[in-house]
Amino acid sequence: MWRMGEWKMSPQERLALVEQCIELGVTSFDHADIYGNYGVEELFGEALALRPALRERIQLISKCGIQLVSPARPAHTIKQYDTSAAHITASVDNSLKALRTDFLDLLLIHRPDPLMDFDEIAETFEQLRAAGKVKHFGVSNFSRHQFECLHRRIPLVTNQVEFSPLHTTPMYDETFDGLQDLRVAPMIWSPLAGGRLFRDDPATEALRSTIGRIANETGQPFGSVVFAWIMQLPSRPIPLTGSGRIQAIEEAVRATQIRLSRSQWFEILRAAQGHEVP
Amino acid sequence: MWRMGEWKMSPQERLALVEQCIELGVTSFDHADIYGNYGVEELFGEALALRPALRERIQLISKCGIQLVSPARPAHTIKQYDTSAAHITASVDNSLKALRTDFLDLLLIHRPDPLMDFDEIAETFEQLRAAGKVKHFGVSNFSRHQFECLHRRIPLVTNQVEFSPLHTTPMYDETFDGLQDLRVAPMIWSPLAGGRLFRDDPATEALRSTIGRIANETGQPFGSVVFAWIMQLPSRPIPLTGSGRIQAIEEAVRATQIRLSRSQWFEILRAAQGHEVP
Amino acid sequence: MWRMGEWKMSPQERLALVEQCIELGVTSFDHADIYGNYGVEELFGEALALRPALRERIQLISKCGIQLVSPARPAHTIKQYDTSAAHITASVDNSLKALRTDFLDLLLIHRPDPLMDFDEIAETFEQLRAAGKVKHFGVSNFSRHQFECLHRRIPLVTNQVEFSPLHTTPMYDETFDGLQDLRVAPMIWSPLAGGRLFRDDPATEALRSTIGRIANETGQPFGSVVFAWIMQLPSRPIPLTGSGRIQAIEEAVRATQIRLSRSQWFEILRAAQGHEVP
Repeated sequence: MWRMGEWKMSPQERLALVEQCIELGVTSFDHADIYGNYGVEELFGEALALRPALRERIQLISKCGIQLVSPARPAHTIKQYDTSAAHITASVDNSLKALRTDFLDLLLIHRPDPLMDFDEIAETFEQLRAAGKVKHFGVSNFSRHQFECLHRRIPLVTNQVEFSPLHTTPMYDETFDGLQDLRVAPMIWSPLAGGRLFRDDPATEALRSTIGRIANETGQPFGSVVFAWIMQLPSRPIPLTGSGRIQAIEEAVRATQIRLSRSQWFEILRAAQGHEVP
Repeated sequence: MWRMGEWKMSPQERLALVEQCIELGVTSFDHADIYGNYGVEELFGEALALRPALRERIQLISKCGIQLVSPARPAHTIKQYDTSAAHITASVDNSLKALRTDFLDLLLIHRPDPLMDFDEIAETFEQLRAAGKVKHFGVSNFSRHQFECLHRRIPLVTNQVEFSPLHTTPMYDETFDGLQDLRVAPMIWSPLAGGRLFRDDPATEALRSTIGRIANETGQPFGSVVFAWIMQLPSRPIPLTGSGRIQAIEEAVRATQIRLSRSQWFEILRAAQGHEVP
Repeated sequence: MWRMGEWKMSPQERLALVEQCIELGVTSFDHADIYGNYGVEELFGEALALRPALRERIQLISKCGIQLVSPARPAHTIKQYDTSAAHITASVDNSLKALRTDFLDLLLIHRPDPLMDFDEIAETFEQLRAAGKVKHFGVSNFSRHQFECLHRRIPLVTNQVEFSPLHTTPMYDETFDGLQDLRVAPMIWSPLAGGRLFRDDPATEALRSTIGRIANETGQPFGSVVFAWIMQLPSRPIPLTGSGRIQAIEEAVRATQIRLSRSQWFEILRAAQGHEVP
């Protein structure tokens, strides 16, 4: 939902989008305190308030731990992290108020903080759970080792990381292997590389044409092929879509019905990397 | 045995080579489904069929998981990996048939596959063991973390990796440390850097002359010094020799009797790296 | 104490420095067999011999495992490592004799040795402890994984690594995360980047001026701010000071009383890295 502020929708339109998502089976909505300059949660909460009964049909995810320099936070003088108990607790309270709900389904630490204390975060998570404010916990952009350090102290349900055919790092740096090992599914941000996969660009031309060919072969939309390519990984990644267009969301959902052949999968990998596997 | 197809030997000559190896105490023969364009196992099996009683005096290693574009596999359209249960099982059956044996002593996954499912591989290994088709399991070219993910599910007996004075990565990237920690010995491919150590080349001149000097000092063949340098590592690596010349194999065996002094060992390391240790 | 040989002090002056340190609450003295060309332990022992009762008020740390080419060790022909049982034991005996004490409080393996055998080192440590020669054990310059391999065999109390605003690697390569996870405090060498932080240099100008500004804001010495910045990390690092000037040592001690604000901490990080956090 991080771009919701850019969509210039009325509360009614936002509600309609949420309801269309639910009809498609998309019921998890990914937030963060900082999205839209600390404004998106409020926009979503405003829509939810128009039909409060939706709350029990959806899952709300939020994040905390980054502090932005922003007119909405005049006290901030530098972009920094804060993963202290005090900040996490206060940020959750803010998110609950803005989202007009009394619990989050999932709370993530947004980025690994060089000052994070694993014990302190785990204790704070326990207290938030005991208070009924958050049901599940996770992290975002953590390394495999950082994930495991915190997971040893309190079970985490995901690590939300960037991944796409244009950013395959988590496939090679232990992130996906480590999550598969623990049977924890990653969530994926920027699965379409922020739209770069769609743009005319010599650097990504071979990849785009390979995906396009497979889209033709399978009779599926381009975006669905990319989502299917990601979801076929053995760690069972769950890609997010950052789009407000219901068509783009439909393409993401459609991917759950597609199974690429192993050769199609490796053709996309080869095109993404510029060379075949060793 | 990966180059056996290039040696243009008759089945009788191949058998003679195997018997000479056994006399030297070399009783493990390293194969893979793909060696020699999917042909080497057949060549070896043909020789073995001339004297089936040899089977109980040797250990047969094979690998699977890579699929090559090859006249021998017309269905393949791209170089890819396949570590599915179906492919592993079929590949083992092929290897057994080609090698004319009813069991492998050791089966390795040839390369880490981004699509590999640790649980599926472990279950497949268990079934192959239960069926009496494979006695032991391992991997090749796996990172330390990948090795441990699979080793947690089924005990592995080796990770076969590239290592030589010209390729010292496994000494610094946790591979050897991790195997030593688990008391598992690595197998080494390309211990002589594919022959590059013997070639006249300014880039390797200092290293070659250091090894040559130590060979002179100790009265040992050049190749034996290299093998000894590798085997002295605390993870107890087992180097392979890819040679079909019995003299080269003798030099490898001879290395088991050599113990370099610590200073000789570090002289080779310094020459290989171009600087002393920090 | 690694530069003690350069300070040209008489035994009485060295004793005075030790006593001044103790008055400041600095009671741990960091040695290594090789410091000052194998000479510093002797200089320190000479001072200690002037007032033997000091021994029970201080902690003596030493290290072994590096062998230098040095007039003091004519048998050495190359800089190398030796982490064999024989060398560790002999090196401790030398250190005890030179320091004129019958035990070390802490012994560290100085550098990870490609030839180190984790089991052999752990057994040697056990024997040194049983013999009453060493109370605690640790390592220096080890990776997270190497630390854990040895720590699994015998509990280690520290990993002494290089860290400063100009060398932040351990904050990002699992070293500090791993130690925090195990609740083991790192020791820090070169916390002031070997004096580079004080030198006029365009490359470090932004960092120096940021630290300088925070020093002014807080009314603390420049060096104290750097020490505080380090000690605020959640792994609770213990910085060493390599200085023989009592004023520099006072500044280090003073840092234990300083708590930087989170923003000040991230201002120093941003200046050190040249960009804000992601």
